[in-house]
Amino acid sequence: MALIVQKYGGTSVGTPERIKNVARRVASWQAKGHQVVVVVSAMSGETNRLIALAKEVQANPSPRELDVIASTGEQVTIGLLSMALMDIGVKARSYTGGQVRILTDNAYTKARIVSIDEANIRHDLDQGHVVVVAGFQGVDDAGSITTLGRGGSDTSAVAIAAALKADECQIYTDVDGVYTTDPRIVPEARRLETITFEEMLEMASLGSKVLQIRSVEFAGKYKVKLRVLSSLEELGQEGPGTLITFEEDIKMEQPIISGIAFNRDEAKLTVLGVPDRPGIAYQILGPVAEANIDVDMIIQNVGHDGTTDFSFTVPRGEFAKAMAILEQVKGHIGAREITGDNKITKVSVVGVGMRSHVGIASKMFRTLAEEGINIQMISTSEIKISVGIDEKYLELAVRVLHKAFELEQVPA
Amino acid sequence: MALIVQKYGGTSVGTPERIKNVARRVASWQAKGHQVVVVVSAMSGETNRLIALAKEVQANPSPRELDVIASTGEQVTIGLLSMALMDIGVKARSYTGGQVRILTDNAYTKARIVSIDEANIRHDLDQGHVVVVAGFQGVDDAGSITTLGRGGSDTSAVAIAAALKADECQIYTDVDGVYTTDPRIVPEARRLETITFEEMLEMASLGSKVLQIRSVEFAGKYKVKLRVLSSLEELGQEGPGTLITFEEDIKMEQPIISGIAFNRDEAKLTVLGVPDRPGIAYQILGPVAEANIDVDMIIQNVGHDGTTDFSFTVPRGEFAKAMAILEQVKGHIGAREITGDNKITKVSVVGVGMRSHVGIASKMFRTLAEEGINIQMISTSEIKISVGIDEKYLELAVRVLHKAFELEQVPA
Repeated sequence: MALIVQKYGGTSVGTPERIKNVARRVASWQAKGHQVVVVVSAMSGETNRLIALAKEVQANPSPRELDVIASTGEQVTIGLLSMALMDIGVKARSYTGGQVRILTDNAYTKARIVSIDEANIRHDLDQGHVVVVAGFQGVDDAGSITTLGRGGSDTSAVAIAAALKADECQIYTDVDGVYTTDPRIVPEARRLETITFEEMLEMASLGSKVLQIRSVEFAGKYKVKLRVLSSLEELGQEGPGTLITFEEDIKMEQPIISGIAFNRDEAKLTVLGVPDRPGIAYQILGPVAEANIDVDMIIQNVGHDGTTDFSFTVPRGEFAKAMAILEQVKGHIGAREITGDNKITKVSVVGVGMRSHVGIASKMFRTLAEEGINIQMISTSEIKISVGIDEKYLELAVRVLHKAFELEQVPA
Repeated sequence: MALIVQKYGGTSVGTPERIKNVARRVASWQAKGHQVVVVVSAMSGETNRLIALAKEVQANPSPRELDVIASTGEQVTIGLLSMALMDIGVKARSYTGGQVRILTDNAYTKARIVSIDEANIRHDLDQGHVVVVAGFQGVDDAGSITTLGRGGSDTSAVAIAAALKADECQIYTDVDGVYTTDPRIVPEARRLETITFEEMLEMASLGSKVLQIRSVEFAGKYKVKLRVLSSLEELGQEGPGTLITFEEDIKMEQPIISGIAFNRDEAKLTVLGVPDRPGIAYQILGPVAEANIDVDMIIQNVGHDGTTDFSFTVPRGEFAKAMAILEQVKGHIGAREITGDNKITKVSVVGVGMRSHVGIASKMFRTLAEEGINIQMISTSEIKISVGIDEKYLELAVRVLHKAFELEQVPA
């Protein structure tokens, strides 16, 4: 008998019929003898509806009151799923975040979990109940309702799993696991049996949006075994999904590269000929950050003749705004020229194995060169190498890299 | 400076625009120097939507989980109204029933209030906040969400007013007070400045559905000054509404009769020739009660020849069901015949003054007789006399009684 925490997102609970499907899936796990805690999101579209309603009343809604309103979405789902479970003969009991109690700080709309009192949940599990918990929400120490921000239900699930020392935290989604790359681009893409937390972080931030990055960090910190599974598979025919593991758990024969990630939503800005002096990066990026524009890759080459070139990428929707900011600061920072390109994409090879293997970068660059793909930017971390390339080459690049690193082959 | 509790129902908060109107009204009271606590219902239609959603998942919904779901309606409104108040510069803070905390028993969907912790509310009032509380809901001592049943928001408001020892509890509705009778029938009907709790109870149960009867009982028990006001009147041009008072507060010249109430939704059933023996009323009404049919008037005349006739009224929607039940028990109870009439209505004169005045009944009966209106049933209480008459005479009866008791005249 294991203790399992399962999380179902908004699409999985989007209609009464789908909620009944989730109930059947949960029941099948309990029938196998497991204790099950289920964490659910609001029905799809509900959170947006509530936020829109709030904005009709106050254009810039009070964060505390917005949380009071937004948290009702999950509250409805926990009631409905508990009913669906009882309707098929499974004892069930719902909890809001405050009822658990999931204590957070009071940073409304983006609160952080401080602690979880698992006593109520454990008591109900021991009585044979399935416990259904509202994701995305908690309560601060003054008793006010808080929400964890978008995607917070994944984080709720992981935090509850950590508090209960659950055997596994299962994140149900609309894909059956994490793939070596997007199967729509590379039909040979293969579901990974396992992936490390570190790789998952790189994959998630690079555009494989299976899990919320924050929940992955959380799981890594508290050593929660996290598994990505599909909520769409027929009962009795479920695959094993992808288990997210710690590096030390992985067998020695771990492949060097786990996957090819990519992100289409990139635009490049370059500041040419700025004085190569301390503080210049801050002078350029400070105003961009103040305008709440997320910056992804940042590249600065060695300077020559006392000046240097500085490039960074932003989401395409922020490109025009970022360009305008650079034009404003151009004189102040003494730059020669500002250029931009909003047709860039990022392709990355990711794998913890590359730490101990040389030649990954050169193999990547050679593969792209053989196809005539020009690399515009390069950025590396311990376990990934990302390149910025023209968007027209994206699919080609992903395909040839997937093949070059033999990702279609099941590791020995 | 007074402490005022105001309650706004679902129609008053039915749209973002109406919520903004409520905010302006609340702000105008605070601007006069009063401390204001506002109790709100769910936006009109929302509770029904939530209950329908629940029934899609479980035909006979779990009461505990139904309360989890239904209570979100008011939770959304408190957030929205608090935002609307802040938007016009009024400090505001919302509370769910559980946050207040409004402690109830655990009779889900029809819980009763046990106690109210007023500390949080008082603290916020002293800080200059308007406090916005979700009506209709509370929390049991295990921390589970409860609801008070339909119309429970009025009860919440009265209970909070009692706990805070508020100077007045104002129930905002779509009429500007309690009238001597329905102005659609008698154009001369007059708004009452005051009405006693006892009269209000009779008026409410007789069909003047301005206030929930339970909240009136509650206000009477805890001596809360209750006032019915209109939420539709222009700001600055509000009338005084109707104050619901205790009998001892009323001046001696209180008119004998306060109003003419009526109820169209009555159907009469008569059991003819039943043996006149102890227990016969129970044998007839027991099966009716078991079928969850509400019984209103009950009449049993003195018997003769060892048998008696027994009549009662039920809502018209239950008429066929009640007739079928009587036909079933007819043989068992030894009745001669069952008759029914689903075109009956009830008209009542109500007034605490009638206790100390003889002749009210005879004046009522004479007035009806002069118009040729046949009285089919008579039922009396300390402060009302009700008659059952054919529905075709209803409007006529109300008009002539209103005139006979001179209700159009303002009392001296």
